[in-house]
Amino acid sequence: MNPFLTKLGITLPIIQAPMAGTSTPAMAAAVSNAGGLGSVGVGAMTAEAARKTIGEIRKATNRAFNVNVFCHRPSLADPARESAWIEKLRPTFATYGAEPPATLREIYKSFVSDEAMFDVMMLERPAVVSFHFGLPSPAKIAALRSAGIILLASATNLEEAKIVAAAGIDAVVAQGYEAGGHRGMFDPAKPDECLGTTALTRILAQNLKIPVISAGGIMDGAGIAACLALGASAAQLGTAFVACPESDADVAYRAALLDRANVRTTLTTSISGRPARCIVNKFTTLADSVPVQEIAAYPMAYDAGKALNAAAKAKGEYAFGAQWAGQAAALARVMPAGLLVAELHAELERALANTRVN
Amino acid sequence: MNPFLTKLGITLPIIQAPMAGTSTPAMAAAVSNAGGLGSVGVGAMTAEAARKTIGEIRKATNRAFNVNVFCHRPSLADPARESAWIEKLRPTFATYGAEPPATLREIYKSFVSDEAMFDVMMLERPAVVSFHFGLPSPAKIAALRSAGIILLASATNLEEAKIVAAAGIDAVVAQGYEAGGHRGMFDPAKPDECLGTTALTRILAQNLKIPVISAGGIMDGAGIAACLALGASAAQLGTAFVACPESDADVAYRAALLDRANVRTTLTTSISGRPARCIVNKFTTLADSVPVQEIAAYPMAYDAGKALNAAAKAKGEYAFGAQWAGQAAALARVMPAGLLVAELHAELERALANTRVN
Repeated sequence: MNPFLTKLGITLPIIQAPMAGTSTPAMAAAVSNAGGLGSVGVGAMTAEAARKTIGEIRKATNRAFNVNVFCHRPSLADPARESAWIEKLRPTFATYGAEPPATLREIYKSFVSDEAMFDVMMLERPAVVSFHFGLPSPAKIAALRSAGIILLASATNLEEAKIVAAAGIDAVVAQGYEAGGHRGMFDPAKPDECLGTTALTRILAQNLKIPVISAGGIMDGAGIAACLALGASAAQLGTAFVACPESDADVAYRAALLDRANVRTTLTTSISGRPARCIVNKFTTLADSVPVQEIAAYPMAYDAGKALNAAAKAKGEYAFGAQWAGQAAALARVMPAGLLVAELHAELERALANTRVN
Repeated sequence: MNPFLTKLGITLPIIQAPMAGTSTPAMAAAVSNAGGLGSVGVGAMTAEAARKTIGEIRKATNRAFNVNVFCHRPSLADPARESAWIEKLRPTFATYGAEPPATLREIYKSFVSDEAMFDVMMLERPAVVSFHFGLPSPAKIAALRSAGIILLASATNLEEAKIVAAAGIDAVVAQGYEAGGHRGMFDPAKPDECLGTTALTRILAQNLKIPVISAGGIMDGAGIAACLALGASAAQLGTAFVACPESDADVAYRAALLDRANVRTTLTTSISGRPARCIVNKFTTLADSVPVQEIAAYPMAYDAGKALNAAAKAKGEYAFGAQWAGQAAALARVMPAGLLVAELHAELERALANTRVN
């Protein structure tokens, strides 16, 4: 038996990615009940909302699940840069008969400075807590560990993964370039090697002693089998779950994802202020030629992005959404999350049984 | 038995990437003799040199091997753009006491217009011919096929792969973003989805009826096992062979590749005029901030790039080389090519035997 799965208390090497804004308690519970590890992302919630969310999952499953928090370096306000970004977006707001916000707020508190959220985790003690965009302080990591919580953290390269391992985190999520949503790099100002899932998984598996979880471009059992062959202990799938009925994705997001012949993704900084992989839409196209340094920092840009999406939606235009998706989006399926996990399991068994040298 | 391997006349699902300028007849023969498919890239050679190269391989093996040609759209001279690029590089040439070339030549003839090279293929009839950057005419494809030659072609997305399949090519090389060297996109002016090996392999395997060969970031048997799990019929490895004694890589290229703690790669257009993945060096850094449209077209830019490398080398500076490598470069090993194939085979068997659901 894979000791990492035993430690997590799950039977399948399948983790449903947290996907703040898209994952739901129902999705997480369905995945955990089916033998995988369900997750919710609470990085965009208040501590109180996170506590309620955890309670809802617990009503629907008594199995292990994962709660994901954002650990970005809290951003410094830069009124000049934010105003410039507001002005840049003003004509697009005007197209939809709206005004941009006068100022941009730090709409999400980083877990590194959110004491109330830390208290919720210590009180609720979900089986697993995962970190994105970096790590909290050594003291907080130690406290969460001594509360019996298993810790995971994302890394996009070996340097970050080594920091994760050295901090005493139980396993690292190797987030490949294919992955949808926000790239978890610790410092977005540093050059990004853009390591694909194949390369990153193998580099981390060869260099680390802690288990590696592969993420990025994995949509079916064959993809999971490939990660395991590369030495990963489990695979994390996000986009595969976006079209599940349990998802919070809106109709336009689902339609864009399921437009198999046309769905394409791109990395964009314009929606939130941090690089994230999104379905090519009017928002990603709008900012194609804008230098990153002209975009407000995360999460201030996200305040503008959400306002623009709301303004466009009010006029029936849904193509300004944060339609996060990975590069293999065209392989997405519509299936209840629990059934999808069962199907992934069956495909994984078949892929392993049918893969031969020659 | 994997029917594609039978068709190719090989026993292992391992193709050594052609790597024009780095592969050698000795490397190709060693790989084929060990049960894989050895390759040479003749895209940078005259027809006469290609014929000699094929003869050298035949002296060293009686097994199947692959000859790769470049099928880029022949470039139009653009003296203004070329002059501007020459001027841009002039200060760097001056650093090494040299003058840039006065004009840039089309140093490589595309296979699509190289009748002498086509005649060599028809005469020599290597078991396999592969195409990069596009395809030759339907008439040439038909002629090569009726000569009994198995044809392969690179694709970087589903659209290109569908063109490859529709043209009657026997198998498609799914060249992931991780891959070293030139990206095989048919039209470098089109937006690049930058599909990673995991995503691209699975998308092609799910959508095509012809066999898929995975390429990009694959350095060992675990990587090959992963490709097979994704539905590929074989894996193509280039960077894994660069440090073999049979390789034509110079001392500086080998040293950069084997500097495991520091080797990083980046996609650059500056060296040749087409996007290619190279070890981060003085040449890739020089052009980091240069807009692509200011760089001379392929292969004219390569004429300047080779001259700059020669000028720098003459002064003892080796960091302007076309040090092509994939994202998993840090996993490169120094081993004779035949032994490497045997080791890849052993690792592949182990990876398949040890990969379990839980």
